[in-house]
Amino acid sequence: MAKPIVLTGDRTTGPLHLGHYAGSLQTRLKLQKDHDQFVLLADSQALTDNAHRPEKVRENILEVALDYLAVGIDPDLSTICLQSHLPALAELSMLYLNFVTVARLERNPTIKDEVRARGFGRNIPAGFLCYPAAQAADITAFKAALVPVGEDQAPIIEQTNEIVRRINAQAGSEILLEAMALIPKAGRLPNPDGKGKMSKSSGSAILLSASPDEIYAAVRGMFTDPNHLHVQDPGHVDGNVVFAFLDAFCDDLGEVESLKNHYQQGGLGDQAIKKRLDQVLQALIAPIRTRRAELAREKAFVIDVIRRGTERAKQVTEATKQEVAEGLGLFSLSRA
Amino acid sequence: MAKPIVLTGDRTTGPLHLGHYAGSLQTRLKLQKDHDQFVLLADSQALTDNAHRPEKVRENILEVALDYLAVGIDPDLSTICLQSHLPALAELSMLYLNFVTVARLERNPTIKDEVRARGFGRNIPAGFLCYPAAQAADITAFKAALVPVGEDQAPIIEQTNEIVRRINAQAGSEILLEAMALIPKAGRLPNPDGKGKMSKSSGSAILLSASPDEIYAAVRGMFTDPNHLHVQDPGHVDGNVVFAFLDAFCDDLGEVESLKNHYQQGGLGDQAIKKRLDQVLQALIAPIRTRRAELAREKAFVIDVIRRGTERAKQVTEATKQEVAEGLGLFSLSRA
Repeated sequence: MAKPIVLTGDRTTGPLHLGHYAGSLQTRLKLQKDHDQFVLLADSQALTDNAHRPEKVRENILEVALDYLAVGIDPDLSTICLQSHLPALAELSMLYLNFVTVARLERNPTIKDEVRARGFGRNIPAGFLCYPAAQAADITAFKAALVPVGEDQAPIIEQTNEIVRRINAQAGSEILLEAMALIPKAGRLPNPDGKGKMSKSSGSAILLSASPDEIYAAVRGMFTDPNHLHVQDPGHVDGNVVFAFLDAFCDDLGEVESLKNHYQQGGLGDQAIKKRLDQVLQALIAPIRTRRAELAREKAFVIDVIRRGTERAKQVTEATKQEVAEGLGLFSLSRA
Repeated sequence: MAKPIVLTGDRTTGPLHLGHYAGSLQTRLKLQKDHDQFVLLADSQALTDNAHRPEKVRENILEVALDYLAVGIDPDLSTICLQSHLPALAELSMLYLNFVTVARLERNPTIKDEVRARGFGRNIPAGFLCYPAAQAADITAFKAALVPVGEDQAPIIEQTNEIVRRINAQAGSEILLEAMALIPKAGRLPNPDGKGKMSKSSGSAILLSASPDEIYAAVRGMFTDPNHLHVQDPGHVDGNVVFAFLDAFCDDLGEVESLKNHYQQGGLGDQAIKKRLDQVLQALIAPIRTRRAELAREKAFVIDVIRRGTERAKQVTEATKQEVAEGLGLFSLSRA
């Protein structure tokens, strides 16, 4: 039996950080074992709000690919592929735009939030408004059954499935698959300063290539409990970034639980918990950093991984495009 | 020196009629002699407001191609090609959507008028709102210098040129060409009943395949001057459909002028001018109808014309896509 298909990926707007590791990379490492996983370098989508900074999108394709390989995404188990080099995705996007109204796109909660966050006002690039249709193209072209996404992206999967139902209803057969969002239980990792979630644009994200000193400095400066002035005082664990990181990255759950209890009762200092977190993060990142540096010297190998993955993805996405065109009864010169 | 490039074409939503002949086909017959003319069977664009009737779009591709060949579009002089089979057009469309805002698309007068005419209200398919970006992709992909369009479509060329300037400015070189709209001097041909302009959807258009009886019936029923009750009465020429048709199709301008004078003075009956128009239209359509019927029996030939044209168009449009991608500094796996 064919393995269930997973589509995942990242906008290529910057190297990946610990927020990605906790939020999606770990999941991918598990999924690749018993799923057919496509990992999309989403450079075209990255252009929807970076059209005037294409160099940023271009330069980060290899950075993100390096991150994938460094954490253990295995090109023999996962297909790493490049969105801009898969024309069927653009063709399906243009087709799907006919199956969704402008009003529906404007009502999409993800789009609403992101338009607000980016301060577009009335000047939303049309490509940005339309990106849910492009994501629907990505998801359906790979026939993904599972799409790991953050909670904020769940409405995009809803919108994809609406398009799927419309296409299938019109074709009179189940050409396309409805996808299921796989939403991580844990919320997104905070920034070290406790302000907002860790993101590429926050400037304080801890990269997967962070040096020992960078890790140490980031942990030392982490927001804890501002009222926890003396070691003997009871401290708060909620909103305490150090504990959010320990929850995300310390494998010994019992240890984290006992550290939390101790901290809440008083008698455990910020220095002590930061020291422990520093150990955890140094141990996590060291092998990734080393492997990443090695791979960065083998650019031809990385390019070849992307090339082979994109070639396979091309076959899959072209086949889906043909099926959709046939299903809808579009004209085909090759069948004419 | 290379001939100037022309892009023209039709949405494949119905066979062509005399309105097309007067408005664009005649121009194409002239242009193909000393221009490199691409004639686009715009099936993808036709889907933007026919997504739920794809069979209408599918079935009319060959009908429109038959019309082209029947009127004398010469596949050795013009390149007849199929939009849906040119992936670079979809890829450029998606890219250009990042260079135009939703607000700008909504302000496009052509879009405003067409949204009103189609009664979309708030339920505009996103593909329809976005079609100026898709037309910009068509025009620029062929590097067209001239685009023959109706006056109502002139704002689309304006919007195309805005995108061209943005792309060129960002690339720092003149990769793309600004296009010039070639707007016919004569206005659009009216419907035989005088209500509105002749269009595929009006139901009373005189097709290029019309039979002698259909032509006769259409002319007999034509709207003239409702106050011209007796032959001896002076009649009006403005708003008189018969004269609009004589202006468009009678090669003897002196004859039309003297008929107009006679009619305005009184003494020339509607029957007489209709008889003359019937002769003109029968003579115009007869060879087109015959040639069209012959070609309809040679489907393989027609398909082959489209296939060869699309193959050539593919080379041209792919080359432009590469140039744009390189110009903007997008990532290329083949150059990596």
